[in-house]
Amino acid sequence: MVSFQEIIRSHHRIDKFIHRSKVLTNQSLDDLTGANLYFKCENFQKAGAFKIRGATNAVEQLSAKEIEKGVATASSGNHGAALAMAATRRGGKVTVVMPDNSSPKKVENVKRNGGEIIWCRPLQESREKVLNKFVQETGAAMIHPYNDERIIAGQGTVAMELLEDQPDLDVIITPLSGGGLLSGTLCAAKIMKPNIKVYGAEPEEADDAYRSFKAGIRLANKTTNTICDGLRAQIGVINFPIIQEMVDGIFTLSEQEIIDSMRMIWERLKIVVEPSSAIVLAAVMKNLRLFKNKNIGLILSGGNVDLDDLPW
Amino acid sequence: MVSFQEIIRSHHRIDKFIHRSKVLTNQSLDDLTGANLYFKCENFQKAGAFKIRGATNAVEQLSAKEIEKGVATASSGNHGAALAMAATRRGGKVTVVMPDNSSPKKVENVKRNGGEIIWCRPLQESREKVLNKFVQETGAAMIHPYNDERIIAGQGTVAMELLEDQPDLDVIITPLSGGGLLSGTLCAAKIMKPNIKVYGAEPEEADDAYRSFKAGIRLANKTTNTICDGLRAQIGVINFPIIQEMVDGIFTLSEQEIIDSMRMIWERLKIVVEPSSAIVLAAVMKNLRLFKNKNIGLILSGGNVDLDDLPW
Repeated sequence: MVSFQEIIRSHHRIDKFIHRSKVLTNQSLDDLTGANLYFKCENFQKAGAFKIRGATNAVEQLSAKEIEKGVATASSGNHGAALAMAATRRGGKVTVVMPDNSSPKKVENVKRNGGEIIWCRPLQESREKVLNKFVQETGAAMIHPYNDERIIAGQGTVAMELLEDQPDLDVIITPLSGGGLLSGTLCAAKIMKPNIKVYGAEPEEADDAYRSFKAGIRLANKTTNTICDGLRAQIGVINFPIIQEMVDGIFTLSEQEIIDSMRMIWERLKIVVEPSSAIVLAAVMKNLRLFKNKNIGLILSGGNVDLDDLPW
Repeated sequence: MVSFQEIIRSHHRIDKFIHRSKVLTNQSLDDLTGANLYFKCENFQKAGAFKIRGATNAVEQLSAKEIEKGVATASSGNHGAALAMAATRRGGKVTVVMPDNSSPKKVENVKRNGGEIIWCRPLQESREKVLNKFVQETGAAMIHPYNDERIIAGQGTVAMELLEDQPDLDVIITPLSGGGLLSGTLCAAKIMKPNIKVYGAEPEEADDAYRSFKAGIRLANKTTNTICDGLRAQIGVINFPIIQEMVDGIFTLSEQEIIDSMRMIWERLKIVVEPSSAIVLAAVMKNLRLFKNKNIGLILSGGNVDLDDLPW
């Protein structure tokens, strides 16, 4: 568990390095859903995703000596780019283990922010094996994309800002992959507003968290064949019990539902979000009765998408 | 000429019906251009473009009797949709004369907001002939998209808000077509801040305003073969002298320059803008030396674009 005090401390630690992202509303989507939607736009965040929060929070706590040995992670993209941005600012070398089916846009993002890439196969074991080997050989500081309390505390600052700006929320929905964002959101939101409902949204094609939650034990993904390239990871060891204890539910969404919602966000909110973000609107669209007349915070996690490869 | 007092009155008249659109900044585009860019996001505006300002300002000044006879205009899309939204709210019937090469997205927008469409050929004379005939037959109130002081005053509220929010601007650049937005911007900005520079940006493929400005007389477009479907109109009779008197310059941009800038805005600002909006960034990119270290307000006029027909 990460304390709310630690989330506040993390916000003080990182706030000069991040944007306080805007919250957008949209009358036509409110009319369509029968709810009041508040979109927390982390697609406008530095390096294009919320990941800069956790990455900066972790990197800022490293000593100069640790930074000197370099920093390493495994990431499908956004955490890698964020870590590269956070660590190169402190003069550290950053190595990112990336699955070889990563979005070209995200590969470019890692490189642009100064990260070096080591390729792995798109499987959880491959990621971890390659990363562990590198860390053992170099002594680099490993900063896991989600299974790390510094990361969870950093990601919790999204919900903290959102509830500061919109205190009357009844519900928050976050995308769900490894669980960094959702567990951070729970640790912030359930303290700030104990009666708030918090949900995670996950692709049907990578539904390990949903099945794990039902089974009461961490399970692996059976497939990761989803357009949501940010939501293919397995739920983390530290994240899972936090989610188990506090989450109000996990929704799974089909690929078509996610694509339809992505298009709706682009067309109506006029903003660029990646599929992994759009899943939160899909969760509302699929559960209109549950959310009727509610004030709903939707965390749009990022906007790093390849404009040459759109899903419509 | 439209007085600044009239722009203030217009803002009071329309402000409950419009959004005060956000102003976005972006570090990477500032680094790239060597300037400080402030993007006034009228793509987030009601009906997806700044046009709702002028349309609402005109419609709110009609009597109940005039509204009863209906409202009509000729428009390539955004003004038509805006007028439909503004007039149907007052219970009026709206007819829009649209060129038969209008973007399908914009046709849909006009219909969705309750407008009825009469088609014309994509030529200035055809537009005007069809519209005049309709107005004579029905007695509908004609609200021209730009050649109307009520429209100019409404569009001037964009720059008014922008300068209220960012008083330290050195420059404002607007897209330029019929001249409603540019003339309104001039009437607001040059009073609020007499030493500010104001420029218009126009496609090379529809450069009537640039040639008119040089010649000192209103000229017609030779072609309107531009991706900027919002920038194909001819500069207006009322608009031209205002622009002649006060504008600091008119830039013309190639199709490729416009497309490159559009992509840059989507990728870096993470927002959806139409080509007609992106032209203002193209004007900065092409004139880096002129704009070095300047604080530049860029009016992003709209975000109504067909996601199935992107130019890359």
